[in-house]
Amino acid sequence: MPVEPGRFSPDNEGGKLAVERLHALLADDLKAVNALIVERMQSSVSLIPRLANHLIASGGKRLRPVVTLASARMCGYAGMKHVNLAGAVEFIHTATLLHDDVIDESALRRGQATANVVWGNQATVLVGDFLFSRAFQLMVEIGSLGILDILSAASATIAEGEVMQLSATHDLSTNREMYMAVIEAKTAALFAAAAEVGAVIAGRPAVEARALKSFGHNLGVAYQLIDDVLDYAGFRATLGKNEGDDFREGKITLPVVLAFSRGNSEERKFWTRTICEGIQHEPDFKTARRLMEEHNALADTIVEARKFADAADAALDRFPDNAHRRALIDLAAFAVNRIY
Amino acid sequence: MPVEPGRFSPDNEGGKLAVERLHALLADDLKAVNALIVERMQSSVSLIPRLANHLIASGGKRLRPVVTLASARMCGYAGMKHVNLAGAVEFIHTATLLHDDVIDESALRRGQATANVVWGNQATVLVGDFLFSRAFQLMVEIGSLGILDILSAASATIAEGEVMQLSATHDLSTNREMYMAVIEAKTAALFAAAAEVGAVIAGRPAVEARALKSFGHNLGVAYQLIDDVLDYAGFRATLGKNEGDDFREGKITLPVVLAFSRGNSEERKFWTRTICEGIQHEPDFKTARRLMEEHNALADTIVEARKFADAADAALDRFPDNAHRRALIDLAAFAVNRIY
Repeated sequence: MPVEPGRFSPDNEGGKLAVERLHALLADDLKAVNALIVERMQSSVSLIPRLANHLIASGGKRLRPVVTLASARMCGYAGMKHVNLAGAVEFIHTATLLHDDVIDESALRRGQATANVVWGNQATVLVGDFLFSRAFQLMVEIGSLGILDILSAASATIAEGEVMQLSATHDLSTNREMYMAVIEAKTAALFAAAAEVGAVIAGRPAVEARALKSFGHNLGVAYQLIDDVLDYAGFRATLGKNEGDDFREGKITLPVVLAFSRGNSEERKFWTRTICEGIQHEPDFKTARRLMEEHNALADTIVEARKFADAADAALDRFPDNAHRRALIDLAAFAVNRIY
Repeated sequence: MPVEPGRFSPDNEGGKLAVERLHALLADDLKAVNALIVERMQSSVSLIPRLANHLIASGGKRLRPVVTLASARMCGYAGMKHVNLAGAVEFIHTATLLHDDVIDESALRRGQATANVVWGNQATVLVGDFLFSRAFQLMVEIGSLGILDILSAASATIAEGEVMQLSATHDLSTNREMYMAVIEAKTAALFAAAAEVGAVIAGRPAVEARALKSFGHNLGVAYQLIDDVLDYAGFRATLGKNEGDDFREGKITLPVVLAFSRGNSEERKFWTRTICEGIQHEPDFKTARRLMEEHNALADTIVEARKFADAADAALDRFPDNAHRRALIDLAAFAVNRIY
């Protein structure tokens, strides 16, 4: 369903169906990934599986492992090492989520209390470290230095992106270019690596690995742009999820950049007070949403996301049509049409 | 200088001289490690080198990289890849220190304000993640899956040890066995890995790698036992360092285990109030030190540490005498005789 500027009309049913189709296509692989995840997050230190289980075994969309699995299969990979790889990717992602819980005070993630609310910052950081180490152990078992190279570099980039985001928080001089640099690092780098290693494990030539890296990168940017829209769009509240976290934390996302740059002097004072100075009152979030609506900030962000989703599709042009290629294209569509 | 039970008489001058001899012997290698560290902690995200520099470039004793360098050289390694390896080991260690700063509230480390006091928990966690990722990138460059295997497993073990320690905090039912399991994981695992990889990079047989792993393990246990003594021993205050951190945080270390188990019912009430319930008043730390003195808790911990230092020495028996082997033996002596 096309998105009209000025109107946010995501195709939730279509999005859900796309994910369901993907999960059905990869059912056996995903079952193996889930079993591996449960097995490898075990530890004689009981707090570790308990805390990790809270986040990792609760399911979620498993988007990044799905990208790895589908990429490997699309490339004709017939083995089972991609299961280890998908598990490693999910462990890295979960470690960053746990460390994110220390970072922001969002009280809900995936509809549950965040780990640090329940167990405290200290255990949350350490279990993240444990899962991160486990990710590297899984990669070592695969035995490919090329894969270790890609995912260790992605991990460093993610950390850089998170620090960049931290530095930009409360700072309205952050422009579109700086915002894009943040989400390319903190989100797109792992999607890019997750796709690229699918080609590497399948032993495909470098040009195909680069194409899949590009697919993952563009998918990741589209996904994050929509994530930043959803924090203001009004759907999450109906799903029992937090909304307005970014606003409360003074996070500079593209909707804020657009609304601020297009606002008059009085509106800029509003953004300065709420985002820079962090002084917020009850009706401010509603006002923020109204200003975004007036300036097409959400709609234009969605338009931007669609461009990246289109670029993700285009990156798959060189691959022959098969069910897994179609699944990856579905995923790019989901990234921009989802409301959750 | 032998330690007599009931009397703590560390040979500080001897300890300092041992470290100075080690640093002189490895001067060129250490210079290369320091240059590598400064180079590889760079990032276009300026907060990262600024924060990392605070901790990593401030020097410190570089004990773990020294173990790697001296182990490799003792094994006859003539290349320069051990510099990368020592850098990776130091990055892993620094990442755990940064994450430790989130964990405990100790206000001084290496005589400086801890990173999280200056930059906050969020940046501290993320820069730790960055350095941890960089460590794996350095290892990938070395190109040895065996080394990646050893250090990723050690990293997971460190995290497990830190979580174990967290679970044991304020818990006086923690016994000597549990305490030993904590320090073996949180401290000795990295020393063991740092030594073992020295043999691996030198291409030595598995039996020598195991001997060096045993050396590192025993050295690490001895080092941590003395660390736990120093928190109560009264030397740190004279060096401008924090003392009594473990006591204030309710950390269960061997001196506490011994003093508690040997105490009468009134003393046990004291430990229950101060350690379990965390209710502490001004004179409590002095009382804790007096009870440890009365029950030989510090002296007996030092005796225990000496046993591990002796075991570290013994693990080197199979290696021919050379300057680097003597340096490693010096290091084990330093671990138990140091006051800093």
